[in-house]
Amino acid sequence: MQKSILNKIDSPVELRFLNQKDLPKLAKELREFIINVVATKQGHLGASLGVVELTIALHYVFNTPEDVLIWDVGHQAYGHKILTGRRDIFHSNRQLHGISGFPKRDESEYDSFGVGHSSTSISAALGMAIASQLKGDFDKHHIAVIGDASIASGMAFEGLNHAGVTDANLLVILNDNAIGIDPSVGALKMYLTNVKKGTQKQDNIFEALNFNYSGPIDGHDIHKIISELNRLKTVKGPKFLHVITTKGKGLKQAETDQVKYHAPGKFDARTGNLEPKSKTKEPPKYQDVFGHTIVELAKKNKYIVGITPAMPTGSSLKYMMDELPKRAFDVGIAEQHAVTLAAGMATQGLVSFCNIYSTFLQRAYDQIVHDVALQKLPVIFCLDRAGLVGEDGATHHGVFDLSYLRCIPNMIIFAPRNELELRNIMYTSQLGLEYPIAIRYPRGRGVTLNWKQPFETIDIGKGVQLKKGKKTAILTIGTIAKNVSEAISGLNISHYDMRFLKPLDENLLHTIFENYSTLVTVEENTIKGGFGSAVLEFASDNNYKNHIKNLGIPDRFIEHGNVDELQQSISLDVESLKKVFNSLQ
Amino acid sequence: MQKSILNKIDSPVELRFLNQKDLPKLAKELREFIINVVATKQGHLGASLGVVELTIALHYVFNTPEDVLIWDVGHQAYGHKILTGRRDIFHSNRQLHGISGFPKRDESEYDSFGVGHSSTSISAALGMAIASQLKGDFDKHHIAVIGDASIASGMAFEGLNHAGVTDANLLVILNDNAIGIDPSVGALKMYLTNVKKGTQKQDNIFEALNFNYSGPIDGHDIHKIISELNRLKTVKGPKFLHVITTKGKGLKQAETDQVKYHAPGKFDARTGNLEPKSKTKEPPKYQDVFGHTIVELAKKNKYIVGITPAMPTGSSLKYMMDELPKRAFDVGIAEQHAVTLAAGMATQGLVSFCNIYSTFLQRAYDQIVHDVALQKLPVIFCLDRAGLVGEDGATHHGVFDLSYLRCIPNMIIFAPRNELELRNIMYTSQLGLEYPIAIRYPRGRGVTLNWKQPFETIDIGKGVQLKKGKKTAILTIGTIAKNVSEAISGLNISHYDMRFLKPLDENLLHTIFENYSTLVTVEENTIKGGFGSAVLEFASDNNYKNHIKNLGIPDRFIEHGNVDELQQSISLDVESLKKVFNSLQ
Repeated sequence: MQKSILNKIDSPVELRFLNQKDLPKLAKELREFIINVVATKQGHLGASLGVVELTIALHYVFNTPEDVLIWDVGHQAYGHKILTGRRDIFHSNRQLHGISGFPKRDESEYDSFGVGHSSTSISAALGMAIASQLKGDFDKHHIAVIGDASIASGMAFEGLNHAGVTDANLLVILNDNAIGIDPSVGALKMYLTNVKKGTQKQDNIFEALNFNYSGPIDGHDIHKIISELNRLKTVKGPKFLHVITTKGKGLKQAETDQVKYHAPGKFDARTGNLEPKSKTKEPPKYQDVFGHTIVELAKKNKYIVGITPAMPTGSSLKYMMDELPKRAFDVGIAEQHAVTLAAGMATQGLVSFCNIYSTFLQRAYDQIVHDVALQKLPVIFCLDRAGLVGEDGATHHGVFDLSYLRCIPNMIIFAPRNELELRNIMYTSQLGLEYPIAIRYPRGRGVTLNWKQPFETIDIGKGVQLKKGKKTAILTIGTIAKNVSEAISGLNISHYDMRFLKPLDENLLHTIFENYSTLVTVEENTIKGGFGSAVLEFASDNNYKNHIKNLGIPDRFIEHGNVDELQQSISLDVESLKKVFNSLQ
Repeated sequence: MQKSILNKIDSPVELRFLNQKDLPKLAKELREFIINVVATKQGHLGASLGVVELTIALHYVFNTPEDVLIWDVGHQAYGHKILTGRRDIFHSNRQLHGISGFPKRDESEYDSFGVGHSSTSISAALGMAIASQLKGDFDKHHIAVIGDASIASGMAFEGLNHAGVTDANLLVILNDNAIGIDPSVGALKMYLTNVKKGTQKQDNIFEALNFNYSGPIDGHDIHKIISELNRLKTVKGPKFLHVITTKGKGLKQAETDQVKYHAPGKFDARTGNLEPKSKTKEPPKYQDVFGHTIVELAKKNKYIVGITPAMPTGSSLKYMMDELPKRAFDVGIAEQHAVTLAAGMATQGLVSFCNIYSTFLQRAYDQIVHDVALQKLPVIFCLDRAGLVGEDGATHHGVFDLSYLRCIPNMIIFAPRNELELRNIMYTSQLGLEYPIAIRYPRGRGVTLNWKQPFETIDIGKGVQLKKGKKTAILTIGTIAKNVSEAISGLNISHYDMRFLKPLDENLLHTIFENYSTLVTVEENTIKGGFGSAVLEFASDNNYKNHIKNLGIPDRFIEHGNVDELQQSISLDVESLKKVFNSLQ
């Protein structure tokens, strides 16, 4: 039996003592280690498998953590984590109190910069490189590893554009596998393909931006990578290395079905086969409700278009891309562009559904204010993964949107309580609105098996009463209504689903304030500035002195774990809510 | 005496009846018209002078408004406004109830898309072009005119990257004058310079992005432009025309001193000389307090760096760029990059002052959340032009920042009441904070002649009492304190400057709530989710039942006009405040 190399690597220090000829064996072990853990513990698979050789080579050649290494987006950093002292706790990946699925400064000195959202690595590494220069440290290396989907995002271009006029000791490594979560799109991707084919080589676009360009090289040839990195160590100024890799490398199914094996859930580590789906009939994912409903509506309303910035599978806009390909657009990791594109379409009478994850809409905040709301263009924003997202953690929770959207004039803001409400608000929105609307809904499954019911119009700005009781009224917005319904079961307490954060149902609020002494607002959004805050403003404006309690996300970043655990940790679970409601009885 | 051509042009229809040989004369008249009006009424000068020929040519060749024309940023659109029916009201430019300084959909059907912030035109025009295709209109043209500073912004790249893989009928015209408000920067600018010099031509970067590229051509040769536009009308798919212009063309001083004549204030239309500055001693601009203070601090603290996204003159970071050029960075129109660059620098112990206009920080919202606040990096954000900015109007008011920042965990948010407070918080921040801080201050002059006083440390999270009175307390944040001070003069009312929106001075708030029956909050930010909202949340959390009134910006977009007029229009002026306060007596 061969001895394991990986088991001896507690940090890159041990790695650097290895003979270079042993590195392919280490790569094999590292790959197996990742596969074995992710097969049972779940997580992001394909991206990390694709950079095993690159990861080993980088830590072998560079003096991490003194030399800084930033993994753009970060879901390709499992190998990096395992080689930098976290092998034995890697099984806790993405679990509550376990290690994060992304590099995180608090977790390790090897994680030079926290990542999660795309395309930040060049700017951050350049900032570090300039800092080193100013501090007189000219030997320190600063490396950003970025995928071809991420480098096509505007922010990455801004970083390249600045770096190109500095003499900072910056190495940008393009991990080109022609795929992000879904296949990469856009003109730059076409260009990179031509470079790979050799049909485009002269006057390289990155050379035009003043980088010292090299490549493309085979990202699975570890000796080649090491030799090239060693050469680049001696090159001054901004450098660009183009590396070709295969996402999912080393697991056949993951190489073949790269989208599914991006984060495949549980699978058989030996065969690669996915765990069979549960046969119990379950309520649908909100994503599928969105995806099927937009197709259903678009078949009847020819003005409907759908837009996603690089999340066709995640958002389920894929269904529309398959059925109505001319009217469904994956624009790549380009949230800013996605929003203003939708605005441009809306000026011409199209009904644009722009589907963006709540956390990523933060990237297009100005475009919502300046291009959409100011011009009152009736773009329909579908904010996927609003609220707590679970294992992706602090970088990905969508818990600020109610606050950052509420202060924008002209916005309609709606949160469906269930699948039917999501369908019906989508139906209502495409009938013609005078204002833009944001519809926020969570990741994952809803509550309604029989969700495909005939459409009904929703009155804009109208809430509904879900349960009648006395003295105390609970006011919710969105799917947290489920926890509240369970928690008040058996209690003589009223429950209202306000549905619209904006416009608020002021008539209903007057009724509530006049009939209950105590109001509790519950939302899966930060309390600061959110739904509860809107109710307080209403009360203040109208001189109501009722007792009001606001429940929601506290004013701190929430870590990773499953949604139930996270709700418990901030007392938004059924049991905790029950205690609060009981105390009000 | 020659007859005027311009006086006969009430719309592009009349323009198109002109003989092409008369167009240079029209250009001359249009230029004079712009100079004469802007000389007395003020506004943006240089940009519009630079595109006089291009403007005439575009409306001459294309069938506006059926063909859509989008002017990126929009301060080069004066000629466009004058030729499209607004000649006789152009004197009302930027004045209250007058026409807007930027294209605006409400104002004219020729203004296809509202602009103001940079780099939106490609996305919007592409959205329109795709809409035309879907509607079966294949003859309609969609034109985005964008400057070389704006095209270097990430959002523009995202638009190009998408457009390049479509067959949309899109024409992007690069108005290359090597300057935005300040001279353009970055690697793309260098590249464009090489293209102009002929040292770089093959495998053009825009061709690499799959555009049909032509140029560079002389943007002041109207016949050449017309001939090229006519040719491009017949070319299918995405096209890119590179036009070289001179900013300020036709007014000698404006050509020579392009930064000053971007928006020169009043000047002599005949000589071009600027109106002499008032000799009365005035309090300084907040911008100058920032600019001089950062230099003063940076000379003592070698870790201080300054960053501006393309606003060295506007922000006065210019002073630091002149005195300490290695430590002050103009990164171009790249707010996203600016923030994450600052974050990267902060990880290495630099004290980064990142100066961004409040309205433009909306472009970097995600970077503040994800790269700065989540990692608790003590970046110092100086938010210039917070509150009402006056004549630039709805696209530029900085009236959302208190709301959109307040919901982010780990942020310190401070608004100085005067110049001394701005200096002192800058001093305090660079002593070492554990959290990022946002310091918001307005455009224009403060209130303190003797502003350069010795530094004093400000206690983080501490408010101050400015006036003692009974029963009613006014709580302010920021420079609106001035109006409040004047309005309560002679009244027996207390005034507190809370200074920090976050952390709130809870001790002081308890004292206030215990000692006054009525509280009024006043802020130059939208009421929704802002400072007043924070006070309501505090009251609710602590079961205070005092009467609270929130004054601030109402929930609608505020138009242009001078700041005094705008404050009147929303009852934040001294007289209006006095009425409110009197009614509470």
